[in-house]
Order: sequence, then C-alpha cells, then structure tokens
Amino acid sequence: MKATESVDRSPFNVVLLATGGTIEKSYDPHSGQLSLAVPVIEGLLESLDMPDVSVRIERLMAKDSLDITDADRQAIVYAAQAVLEQGRVDALVITHGTDTLAETAVALHVALGSPGVPVVITGAMRPYRVAASDAAQNIAQALMAARLLAPGVHAVMHGRAIDAERVVKDYERLTLTARA
Amino acid sequence: MKATESVDRSPFNVVLLATGGTIEKSYDPHSGQLSLAVPVIEGLLESLDMPDVSVRIERLMAKDSLDITDADRQAIVYAAQAVLEQGRVDALVITHGTDTLAETAVALHVALGSPGVPVVITGAMRPYRVAASDAAQNIAQALMAARLLAPGVHAVMHGRAIDAERVVKDYERLTLTARA
Amino acid sequence: MKATESVDRSPFNVVLLATGGTIEKSYDPHSGQLSLAVPVIEGLLESLDMPDVSVRIERLMAKDSLDITDADRQAIVYAAQAVLEQGRVDALVITHGTDTLAETAVALHVALGSPGVPVVITGAMRPYRVAASDAAQNIAQALMAARLLAPGVHAVMHGRAIDAERVVKDYERLTLTARA
Amino acid sequence: MKATESVDRSPFNVVLLATGGTIEKSYDPHSGQLSLAVPVIEGLLESLDMPDVSVRIERLMAKDSLDITDADRQAIVYAAQAVLEQGRVDALVITHGTDTLAETAVALHVALGSPGVPVVITGAMRPYRVAASDAAQNIAQALMAARLLAPGVHAVMHGRAIDAERVVKDYERLTLTARA
Repeated sequence: MKATESVDRSPFNVVLLATGGTIEKSYDPHSGQLSLAVPVIEGLLESLDMPDVSVRIERLMAKDSLDITDADRQAIVYAAQAVLEQGRVDALVITHGTDTLAETAVALHVALGSPGVPVVITGAMRPYRVAASDAAQNIAQALMAARLLAPGVHAVMHGRAIDAERVVKDYERLTLTARA
Repeated sequence: MKATESVDRSPFNVVLLATGGTIEKSYDPHSGQLSLAVPVIEGLLESLDMPDVSVRIERLMAKDSLDITDADRQAIVYAAQAVLEQGRVDALVITHGTDTLAETAVALHVALGSPGVPVVITGAMRPYRVAASDAAQNIAQALMAARLLAPGVHAVMHGRAIDAERVVKDYERLTLTARA
Repeated sequence: MKATESVDRSPFNVVLLATGGTIEKSYDPHSGQLSLAVPVIEGLLESLDMPDVSVRIERLMAKDSLDITDADRQAIVYAAQAVLEQGRVDALVITHGTDTLAETAVALHVALGSPGVPVVITGAMRPYRVAASDAAQNIAQALMAARLLAPGVHAVMHGRAIDAERVVKDYERLTLTARA
Repeated sequence: MKATESVDRSPFNVVLLATGGTIEKSYDPHSGQLSLAVPVIEGLLESLDMPDVSVRIERLMAKDSLDITDADRQAIVYAAQAVLEQGRVDALVITHGTDTLAETAVALHVALGSPGVPVVITGAMRPYRVAASDAAQNIAQALMAARLLAPGVHAVMHGRAIDAERVVKDYERLTLTARA
C-alpha cells in the first residue's frame, strides 16, 4: 500500500453472546474432569488475526446445552433482542453447546423475525482447550459468515451455514447439518 | 438427528491452486532458513474439520510472490481457467504470497471475466508452521467465504472479503485491505 | 562434526510400560467425556527429538490409577521384572496415573530390590491431549533422568526425581513431592 | 498427601544465561525473516510446570552462535563465573546456538575448572517458535539434567548429557553428539 492511498478501515462490529457449551470446556486438574468454570472465548478470539473486526463479548451463562432450560433459552433471546435494539452492531454471534443449538436457533428465528443484521449461532464438537479442536475454525468461520450472510438467523459450523429452521445435529458424523 | 430424518449431505467441491507464498514457508534446520521446499497446505487442510467440503489441491508452483514472474502469473490464470472450464467445481481457492497477491487478483479478474463460481485468493502474514500463524484462520475463512460469496474474484484475509480490483497490501498493519 | 571424526552413537535402550492414567486421557466427542480408549504415549514419543534413544512401548493396561487393583499392581511388577530379566535394556520407564503412583512405586521398590538399571515411574497432572499439559515435559524429563539416575526405583515429575519410598502426591500444588 | 505430612519443598535454584541461538529465533512478519529481536526463553519457561524449581534469567546477548566473537565468548565465561561466585545457585544453565556451542562449552570448562555445581549448556535445532521444535524438550531436559549431573560443564540435548570436552555438533543427524 502506497502511503498516499486512501483505504477503507471502517471496522466491522460484532457482539458475541457466550452461553457455554463444549467449545468452552477446559480440564480441571483438581477434579480430573472437564468443566465450564473458566471462560475461554476471550483467549480464542485473541488468537485470531482480524485487525478490522471488533468483537465485544457478553457472557450470559456457562452451561452445557443439555442443561439449558426454557428460561435460559428465553434469556438468550432477550439478550439478542437487546443487542439488536441498541443498533450500532453489524452482526451478532452466539456460542452455544451443539446438543440443543438447533432449539435455540429456532427460538431466535421465531422471536427476532427479520433482524436487521446476520445472527450466527455456532459451537464446537471438541473443546477449544483440547487437541484437534474445531473451536477456533468454527469461530473464525462464524465471523467470516457473519460478514457475508444476509440478515436472519443462521447456524455455522465446519465451513457450512445453515438456516435456523433447518439445522439439526448429526450425531453420527459429529457436525451440524441441514434437513433436506 | 433422528435416524429417519433426511438430511442434505451433498458435498461442496473446491479446487485449491497452491502457488507458494509465506503461508507455505517452513523451517529448514540444515540451512537455518525458511524455505518453500516442503508443501504444507495438505497438512493444514487435514487440520480443519469440514466433513461436507471436498478440497482437491493442485500445486502450480512454490514461490515467494516477489519472485512470481509475468509468465508465472499467466500460468496461474490458465490453471484457473482450466479448472473452471472442466466445471463440476463449486469454488476455486488460490493460495499466494501477499506481496503481489493484488496483481494476481487483478489478472484473474481481467482474464476470467464473469466466472460462474467464486474465485477466492488468500495467503498469510505468518507461515502455517510458525507460532501465532494466521494461515489456518485464513484458509478456514477463505473456504467459508468461497461458499457464501457471489461468483467473481475476491481476496479473503483476516475475516474480510475484498473485490479483486480493490485489494491492496497494508504493510503497516500487515493485512490486506481495500482501496476506498 | 568433521567427516573423519569418530563419534559415539551407541543407542540408549528404554522399555516404557504404559498403564493409563491422566497422561493418556483424550476427549471422546461422542460421549463428551475424557476417555482412555485411545493410546497416546506413542504420539507423544514421536513428538520428541531423541535420535540416539530407542524406546519400545509395552502396553499393560489403560486405567485410571484409582481403578488399579492389587492384581493390576502385581501385573505391573511382574512386567517390570520380566523386562529387567531379559536384560539388554538401559532403563525402564513406567507411565501411571498420579493418584496411586506412590503405591506402585513402593511395590516396585519392594519387589525389584536392587534392579541393575534405573526404573522411573512418571505421569501427568494434565492429559497430553489437553492445553497446557505437562505430559510431554514429564516424559522428556523421565527419559533424561532415566539416563542419569543410579539404578533403583524413582518417581520423576515436574523436573524432580524422588526416591520410591518417599514419593507422595501433593494435591494442593498438583505435583509429586517427597516426604521430608 | 495428608495434611499432616511434612514434605520437602526447598526450591532448586537455577540461573539461566541467555545468549541467543536458533532456539530464540522468531518470525518477523515485516521482514519475512527469522530474527533474534524478541526474547523467547521467558515464554518457554512459563510453559513448563516445575513448581519447586526457581529459574532466574540473565540475558547476555542475542546472537546467532556463528556471530559469537572471542570477546562474546569471554563475556559468557565471565558471567558464568560471576553467578557461581555469588553462590546461592544450585545449577547454571546456558542457552546458546549449536554451531559454536562446543567452543563455548570448552571455554567454560577451561575457565571454570571445578565449578561447585552443574553447568549445563543447551540450545535447539529448531526455534521454539516454529512447528515441531525441540526447544521446550531441550530446556526441560537441561533443567532435569542440571539437577542430577555432577558438578562440571556438560552439554545437554535430545535426551543426552555430554562432557564439555567431548561435545561436537552432528550436522548430518542434526544433534549434539560425543567424540568417541
């Protein structure tokens, strides 16, 4: 880039709502178990190189998605609505466990109607803090997709974007897929 | 996913043309220098989890992009045309050094006119095989973008897609950016 | 090294008895739990650079050390005796969970009496396949210690070698330590 | 460990003299080259888990060992003597490039005579900040060996300790070895 050139450096503003899920599990050496006690999305985002993307993290809860109750799901919907109503956000990303991700995607789709920006829900099949994790890939791809998708609610995982109403967990291949 | 549900598992078919660049440099302990002697895109792709994306790698050259000649650039264009003419590909991804990536993007844009599928050119500021590399992120995001972008030639780096005619290297912030 | 110089390349021969333990736990994405179903010591050893050390792995069991019974402990002792009786081994390394590592160390010490070579028992507080693991460090240091220690049974962890009769798990600091 | 047990937690005190070498090279995205501009030994040590080892780093220089002059080598010897004369150190570790590591080892051996503690010189064939590095292994093993070796000057690499007078670089196998 020559010094005299004018370039477009306007940032892309994202709010990320963190709810827990496999993506955030980390090893607790005292219990010998995986736990959701320590937030990891912050460290994951620092590992990505996105100089013109600005991500603000809001933590809602830190739950395995099998433990997400109707009230929790409603809290996620309210938080998403609150972010969208404030405006000044170019996209909303939600991290979530995969077991009930599809239910939350539908709840968001029903409640948000036609949001003005892309709403992307993602997660991981292997925690960020274990070997061979898909977490960083999924967050990187969710942020990329959030910039390119049309407004509406989408699930993004493993290089694929799926409409909220069609997303389903594929337990055999360990991915999210779309109803035909 | 219930066993009886029908899901859409049709693969997304990508050809990746590898040309070298920083993304593929690795440490040669005999010389003590970085070299392009060993292909690395194959290993990088294996580290990604994309069960319904099929990527076929074609190696064209292994060059620092400052060493890419007009003839090399023409060879890249011809290879891209050949892949697109064969059809049966959903997107074309090209890995390339960042110093002259913009020139190759323009050459592809001029030569391909209106390709029927997205053509995405990407690279990295830090080699895949060094600490804190942006290589896996960029490939993951290039493949995501290749699925979502309109047909045409695009550069993708650091979570951003840029039209071929506007892309320029930002040597200060070490990224690709867009002319205003 | 000049081509005409004569160098000492005689290998150091180690047998490694694998019994399981935290060091070998890996994430099972189907159950969402850590499991001992997949052996990991092999991959860990491949990641180390020790051109004149030869390690032969013998798998005895794959158990959390809290689940090691008296019969299991006896099987470990017998296996150690069998390796030492065959001779032609310069050191014996045993990987083991840390919760009952001290008991197995004592059992080995009592049963082996004065083994002709160092017998080193080690493990990890964090599995090899999770972030920030101490597993590779401990195996590297156990192999180094196995080359330098006197014959006898020793525990090695976190840069420290401890006589079998004195070793105790420090649950507060998450390490092995020595009775004063 | 039962709460009432008395354990030995006296720390093992090490001074580490850093001089540069391949082990400390890291990628400079502005130049596209490896450089010694950024210290890395600090980060490497933080990645190790050694609760009862205390390491104080003293940086002497940051040089490729092919660029170490006689005056530099003398400065390393003086620094080692100064640390040893202060006492209160259980071992001295020196990180150094491998090309002239043997010369510095001999210079230390000649100048220090019979040091009261182990002096261990180490390095790496692949920088800490590149893939498949042997750096963390070598530092972990050097610290283990520093605790077990007799007083005197030793080179440690790839799981092997070599007397200062016998060490030689094996350019073919990319390791340090011992003259027969």
